[in-house]
Amino acid sequence: MTVNSWQIATKLKIWIQAAGQHLRQHLYDDLQVATKSNRNDLVTNMDKATEKLLVQEIRQAFPEAKIIGEEGFGDKVADLSGLVFFVDPIDGTMNFVKEKENFAIMIGAYLDGKGIVGVILDVVRQKMFWGGPEFGVYCNDIQIKPPKNIDLAAGLLGVSGPLLRQNKYHVADFVAQSSGARIIGSAGVEFTKVIQGIENGYISHLMPWDFAAGKIMAETLGLKVTNIDGDPLNMLSSEIVLIATERTHQQIMTITREHS
Amino acid sequence: MTVNSWQIATKLKIWIQAAGQHLRQHLYDDLQVATKSNRNDLVTNMDKATEKLLVQEIRQAFPEAKIIGEEGFGDKVADLSGLVFFVDPIDGTMNFVKEKENFAIMIGAYLDGKGIVGVILDVVRQKMFWGGPEFGVYCNDIQIKPPKNIDLAAGLLGVSGPLLRQNKYHVADFVAQSSGARIIGSAGVEFTKVIQGIENGYISHLMPWDFAAGKIMAETLGLKVTNIDGDPLNMLSSEIVLIATERTHQQIMTITREHS
Repeated sequence: MTVNSWQIATKLKIWIQAAGQHLRQHLYDDLQVATKSNRNDLVTNMDKATEKLLVQEIRQAFPEAKIIGEEGFGDKVADLSGLVFFVDPIDGTMNFVKEKENFAIMIGAYLDGKGIVGVILDVVRQKMFWGGPEFGVYCNDIQIKPPKNIDLAAGLLGVSGPLLRQNKYHVADFVAQSSGARIIGSAGVEFTKVIQGIENGYISHLMPWDFAAGKIMAETLGLKVTNIDGDPLNMLSSEIVLIATERTHQQIMTITREHS
Repeated sequence: MTVNSWQIATKLKIWIQAAGQHLRQHLYDDLQVATKSNRNDLVTNMDKATEKLLVQEIRQAFPEAKIIGEEGFGDKVADLSGLVFFVDPIDGTMNFVKEKENFAIMIGAYLDGKGIVGVILDVVRQKMFWGGPEFGVYCNDIQIKPPKNIDLAAGLLGVSGPLLRQNKYHVADFVAQSSGARIIGSAGVEFTKVIQGIENGYISHLMPWDFAAGKIMAETLGLKVTNIDGDPLNMLSSEIVLIATERTHQQIMTITREHS
């Protein structure tokens, strides 16, 4: 299968821009909030409506593609052959409900398992991050330079609350060696921080739609994206995802091994 | 001494607005960054220049007042008699340096130890939070309603990274019972989240200029602000500060006692 990455990027940005505008317009509406896997794993009517819309657009434009969506409007996908879209309609639903900021819409497009286009819209900041190996990475229309390859000690680390609180995978140990931890509550927003060089790493337990878009942009910019063992991510299962500058990644791996 | 709280509020807002505009204009300038008490406790030329300016304005308008400033341009203050201003020129200097957002300018005004005016400017979001017992609390020109008195389990908790990482004061234990932790890295921004009802509590190890302004607004809105033992804060020393809804505060106190 041959695809036009530029066409895919352009279409994804248009659809996500429209979906983001809709979310901003309805930010203070009454929401129907339900829980999923646990009491802090939320879904709203807006998550579902947004995914439904994005999935419809993708199906119409790319009828041959497979879709993996957080809220279940996509397909049951057993392998990564062909064109696959990973859709996260609202990443950081808890923030969407409570903070009214720090949430994102994300789509990652993969061809035969290789990332070709990633798009993350930080909805309230109105910053659209998009990119891929063919075009580089941009925030709106400004190209993002590869972040400096800085040491663990020289920067902030984004972490998930549960991993830090329970010191899982020695997260507390390597946070202690950094400039400090941040907990934002949205993988999408965290990815945008790392690709801009604001944080020099991020670690969390994520599903494929949480990391699919960010992984493409991060790797395009020379950042390392692996699981906690340093191995490539499985795009069809949940993973402990570590994204970091090469040096920070190496230093975290060393600490993890020393403590194991 | 009699003072006009309305006059003080108006003047503080004008000075802080100007200082905030200046910081936004110079946000991407090269900074002179130095460390203070530890490698992650930063100060820049902009912290110093901003405090100097604010202290000058206060001295000119209120020559009889005492000033406690983070960067040392104020006075050595031994007691809280009379009019005392607490000045934090940039709260969240690490964020000012790295994130270019999530930092605040704060001033709290106290008369004989009682809070009369608190002002926190979230510089990049351009949100000015101001208030006191005489006027209520506002975000820009919109009055903020007292947050709902919600339970620990029903909301997000702002925490300091080191307290969560080391489970000091059982922070990890009560975070586990909440909807999740957030680490922003600025006490000022955290206070604005709690007074808006976005987070239902915040705990951190703070200096008086970190909590002086926020305490006034929080108490005006019916929130509890104490140290970790539940006692009133000492305005002349560092404290483990807990700000929360009444119910969350009580539930955290119970957990803290059970674990001690």
